[in-house]
Amino acid sequence: MNTFMDKDFILTTKTARKLFHDYAEKMPILDYHCHINPEEIARDRHFENITQVWLGGDHYKWRFMRSCGVEEKYITGDASDHDKFIAWAKCLGRAIGNPLHHWSHLELQRYFGYNGALNEKTAEEVWNLCNKKLASPEMSARNIIKKSGVTLICTTDDPVDALNFHDEIKNDKSFDVQVLPAWRPDKAMNLEKPDYLEYIDKLSEATGFKIGTYEELIKALRARMDYFAEKGCVLSDHGLDFVMYNPASREEIAGIFEKRLNGLTVSYEEELKFKTAFMLDMGKEYKKKNWVMQLHYGCKRNNNTKMFDKIGPDTGFDCIKSETSSTALANFLNALNNEDALPKTILYSLNPNDNEAIGTILGCFQDSTAVSKIQHGSAWWFNDHKIGMERQLMSLASLGNLSGFVGMLTDSRSFLSYTRHEYFRRILCNLIGQWVEDGEFPYDEDILRDIVKDISYNNAVRYFGFNLETK
Amino acid sequence: MNTFMDKDFILTTKTARKLFHDYAEKMPILDYHCHINPEEIARDRHFENITQVWLGGDHYKWRFMRSCGVEEKYITGDASDHDKFIAWAKCLGRAIGNPLHHWSHLELQRYFGYNGALNEKTAEEVWNLCNKKLASPEMSARNIIKKSGVTLICTTDDPVDALNFHDEIKNDKSFDVQVLPAWRPDKAMNLEKPDYLEYIDKLSEATGFKIGTYEELIKALRARMDYFAEKGCVLSDHGLDFVMYNPASREEIAGIFEKRLNGLTVSYEEELKFKTAFMLDMGKEYKKKNWVMQLHYGCKRNNNTKMFDKIGPDTGFDCIKSETSSTALANFLNALNNEDALPKTILYSLNPNDNEAIGTILGCFQDSTAVSKIQHGSAWWFNDHKIGMERQLMSLASLGNLSGFVGMLTDSRSFLSYTRHEYFRRILCNLIGQWVEDGEFPYDEDILRDIVKDISYNNAVRYFGFNLETK
Amino acid sequence: MNTFMDKDFILTTKTARKLFHDYAEKMPILDYHCHINPEEIARDRHFENITQVWLGGDHYKWRFMRSCGVEEKYITGDASDHDKFIAWAKCLGRAIGNPLHHWSHLELQRYFGYNGALNEKTAEEVWNLCNKKLASPEMSARNIIKKSGVTLICTTDDPVDALNFHDEIKNDKSFDVQVLPAWRPDKAMNLEKPDYLEYIDKLSEATGFKIGTYEELIKALRARMDYFAEKGCVLSDHGLDFVMYNPASREEIAGIFEKRLNGLTVSYEEELKFKTAFMLDMGKEYKKKNWVMQLHYGCKRNNNTKMFDKIGPDTGFDCIKSETSSTALANFLNALNNEDALPKTILYSLNPNDNEAIGTILGCFQDSTAVSKIQHGSAWWFNDHKIGMERQLMSLASLGNLSGFVGMLTDSRSFLSYTRHEYFRRILCNLIGQWVEDGEFPYDEDILRDIVKDISYNNAVRYFGFNLETK
Repeated sequence: MNTFMDKDFILTTKTARKLFHDYAEKMPILDYHCHINPEEIARDRHFENITQVWLGGDHYKWRFMRSCGVEEKYITGDASDHDKFIAWAKCLGRAIGNPLHHWSHLELQRYFGYNGALNEKTAEEVWNLCNKKLASPEMSARNIIKKSGVTLICTTDDPVDALNFHDEIKNDKSFDVQVLPAWRPDKAMNLEKPDYLEYIDKLSEATGFKIGTYEELIKALRARMDYFAEKGCVLSDHGLDFVMYNPASREEIAGIFEKRLNGLTVSYEEELKFKTAFMLDMGKEYKKKNWVMQLHYGCKRNNNTKMFDKIGPDTGFDCIKSETSSTALANFLNALNNEDALPKTILYSLNPNDNEAIGTILGCFQDSTAVSKIQHGSAWWFNDHKIGMERQLMSLASLGNLSGFVGMLTDSRSFLSYTRHEYFRRILCNLIGQWVEDGEFPYDEDILRDIVKDISYNNAVRYFGFNLETK
Repeated sequence: MNTFMDKDFILTTKTARKLFHDYAEKMPILDYHCHINPEEIARDRHFENITQVWLGGDHYKWRFMRSCGVEEKYITGDASDHDKFIAWAKCLGRAIGNPLHHWSHLELQRYFGYNGALNEKTAEEVWNLCNKKLASPEMSARNIIKKSGVTLICTTDDPVDALNFHDEIKNDKSFDVQVLPAWRPDKAMNLEKPDYLEYIDKLSEATGFKIGTYEELIKALRARMDYFAEKGCVLSDHGLDFVMYNPASREEIAGIFEKRLNGLTVSYEEELKFKTAFMLDMGKEYKKKNWVMQLHYGCKRNNNTKMFDKIGPDTGFDCIKSETSSTALANFLNALNNEDALPKTILYSLNPNDNEAIGTILGCFQDSTAVSKIQHGSAWWFNDHKIGMERQLMSLASLGNLSGFVGMLTDSRSFLSYTRHEYFRRILCNLIGQWVEDGEFPYDEDILRDIVKDISYNNAVRYFGFNLETK
Repeated sequence: MNTFMDKDFILTTKTARKLFHDYAEKMPILDYHCHINPEEIARDRHFENITQVWLGGDHYKWRFMRSCGVEEKYITGDASDHDKFIAWAKCLGRAIGNPLHHWSHLELQRYFGYNGALNEKTAEEVWNLCNKKLASPEMSARNIIKKSGVTLICTTDDPVDALNFHDEIKNDKSFDVQVLPAWRPDKAMNLEKPDYLEYIDKLSEATGFKIGTYEELIKALRARMDYFAEKGCVLSDHGLDFVMYNPASREEIAGIFEKRLNGLTVSYEEELKFKTAFMLDMGKEYKKKNWVMQLHYGCKRNNNTKMFDKIGPDTGFDCIKSETSSTALANFLNALNNEDALPKTILYSLNPNDNEAIGTILGCFQDSTAVSKIQHGSAWWFNDHKIGMERQLMSLASLGNLSGFVGMLTDSRSFLSYTRHEYFRRILCNLIGQWVEDGEFPYDEDILRDIVKDISYNNAVRYFGFNLETK
């Protein structure tokens, strides 16, 4: 029996262990997509206790606690941080097969030096140990980042954001990790939302001119993109229920936008047309700027209206949207490609059943402007576990060019999530090691080393064009 | 090479073997969902020969025989029981990778003491052995149930059923296994069926008042639910093509029902609206009664019209319905939740591709009224095999709380199917054992024991609230 | 560690090795579905260099090269054959996990005696070795076929094809492999295509009478089917986006066809109705002729309009169509079955998520006219790799009768692809061997031998009714 999560965790073959320990483990981390608040880096936030770090904003953990029948009081309610942690530990102790179990223990091992198992019995011990550790200066936001070997972070930012904290971090010479903005214009697209007009006002303000037409909306966004580009932004991100393709004339789009500006409601069909036009216009601009377009889809959000009304979005009430059309996705990409306006693109679906459709769509739009110009993004959100990552890696390998994959990201709000890169690299090395030891791929150390290092780090450096050296 | 289906069948690690033999194997069986005829328990049915038990009503076996090119005469036709068995044995001998092969041999081992392999060569020997065994009193319906360690059975019953046999069994002190009804009101919902009006007449009769409006329909069903509750019913079951959510006003629903009562045809849209309203009204009542709502969906029935006309429903001509919407399912559950009327719910789709959508929907509606209030049901029907069960278990574990799972059921018409609980437990212990031996979960015998015993039996006792002790 | 692709490649157990080497490996090859040009067999084509064989028309390889960022010049452009090969070798060296890596090395081993690994470093060596080998007479089209143990090939042919080359091959007594036509009438169905009227003219010409009505279209196709049947054709093939079922009256269909003949555009709904009627009429005729109907679906073709305009169809720009309805498929088959007109049918979806829906649909239409009358076709196109084949085999085994499976086909344009049968047989034997060694199926050598030999070859001989002996 293997020891629980020892140094060879997940690495079941000698080749896997060699590839991980000699190469993957030593590579820096490029976290090109996360939800960390840049203010916390700028201010070098310290945490009072492990509940703040772990349970302050992590809806994965909240959701799991609810599945265990825990009262909301101990999840997002007014119970003490101590009692919340104990409630969490009790759940985690029985979380067999759930990625939270692996993630939490990787964090306990790497950041707190705790190699035991967290459960009801060990909860108090771990509570004390973590809090003691968190009190030390080495556990500030910046020190955790440095300790994790991170060279670059992309945050997720709204077009109206002034990006002050990014400036502040850049100008602080004592911290040499690049913290760059990423462009997420969802609020400018979602015209069906009740607060859309308020958002347009904010955007007008940020741009300095009044947005009165659809063309002015796009002009405003272009101006903000220029601003983001000055700050080092090279990638965008879109959260979509599904990738749609409902083309319409510019006149029709102008009319839909005008209707909404006048406070009227738009029909679902109008919404789809508007969003299609919006996405096409964004894509064209990304292509001009050589930005990467990330499309996250297959998600239905805020399904529990009662809890949404109580505690808002991103609190653990989202699910897979099963209605994702490969036809619309292919047609959308083709529409951009027809105008030589298809940017580098990463496709992520929340539905693992979409893996193979994505894998076959990639190949329809690859060209020599980049290695694996169209990427199948890392196993996302609910798929971010051993089985989900293996499915994504095997699907990508079977249908496309695994060796060109830009690899992992944390997608996280927490400073302790960099261990997810380690988790991914272990799974990657294990898969490759297995193929090699089974005689399914030659043992050529040069090639294997390059593939492992590229997927761990170098591909991302090259693909996004960051100002970083490959290793 | 491992011996064919010996005591360590499916148990590939030492931990798996320990968990199964020390804990899982010793737990009683709670079969909360089956299609056994309660009359056969009340009358303590004896079987003349193995064909009666195995081929009398098992459409899984019929279907497999048709796939082997066997004439219908030897399946549901007028061939002798002996010749039908020989035809079946010939098919089974080559049924590699099919769950029928495992199920049949588990039954031969546990109930008939036969440890060989059934095929064309051994068919006569097995025919004689089984029939000799069936002639003994120990192979009566009740004795098989007792021998299997069953503590409680839920049958599947129509609202108009008088439940006489349940009473009879309850009042017979010589048989201490609880046999409770479960509520399956499909016929009251399926207003598109040609015999709907006849059914409504039956329901009127059972309730003692004339059903002339939709509200009276619901009132009648409430009265029958009260009656079922008196008889110990705590769970319902619905067979749906898919979970729909087409809300309409009560006036509109009343009009649709009236239209149908007047002998007119309702449109497909009206059908969906009616069924949505019906399901919402049922759900609300279950919540009040603290019943569990089981939703079985993703199924398209009676696809072969010629065979349906010849031998009716449930004869092996059903398939997966691929059009199941996670959006509608989430919206339906949310609609109940909005009124604090969402009961404990178990979701089963016939399509294994729905596993992950279900897994993510669960988490949107969990709360502290029960551990794992919303459940991902056991691998159902066509998924009831090693691969299907593993997929369901791994999906549930990755996305939710496996340790809170209520586990297996037989869904069977046969008294020999209790071995499916054994099959499930072996697969469960093997999965857990593998995780532990791979170092992916700690070897903590207390925790592992509890998880295995809970999923095997105790969770079901607690979740449904049966009058049983946990073990 | 196992040696890279040695004689026991993929065969991880002793039983797997025994089944493969003693039985599967020795069976002939019946390639009932391929896209080989019969002219190349008639003329016994020789190839100048390995680029001609490998990269001349293989859009799988083109697609992979594009995923590696290779310029189109080196793919379908005007670079030299040498430079194209070097570019390909560089890509292949890093193609870890991609089936092209296995396919290419199987071909290098079996046809060129090269047992190393092809990559950037070995590219020149392999280029020289292959070209030298290709210069020898043993590497002509016919000699490759004979060396591969092929007994029969079905090409894919349009109804207007005169089948001259098939005649020529048949009449040449020096070559005893049967080369038969297969019927692919897609062009007669796709009335939405711009060149449909030209095609109808060609078909009129081939038949000798003017096609002016839908009934005449069907009459013409029946005449061509008679002609194909004379030439030994026993199977048809249809490429469909999805299997649809939109029934309409014959009058309506006649009207749609007339509209199209008059040069008007038909609506999407009319297109679906027309295609449904067309498919039903084809199916009925196949049933009369005892032909097999192959339905290939789940595919969206020509997604990159720019590349389509440059280099046409079948150049690597197709993807999975995710919108495939099990409801329509079941209804289509039922409509034929209702008229006793359902022929033997093989269902192939490009979307592996359809495996289980297909598996359950099979069982709804099996009867005693053939063993496994309705077949789940081999893992097709993008699924033609180890994972895809295992998924198809396990799904078929779990839901149907694996032992009746007609097995593998190449679906290829190349004479070197017969190794895909070897690849399939290794995967099949490995799966069966694993089940046996795990104690999940008995070690009965007679039964295992028969199953392996049947799936490798004999089932296809019996199912299609070819004039061949089983082995």
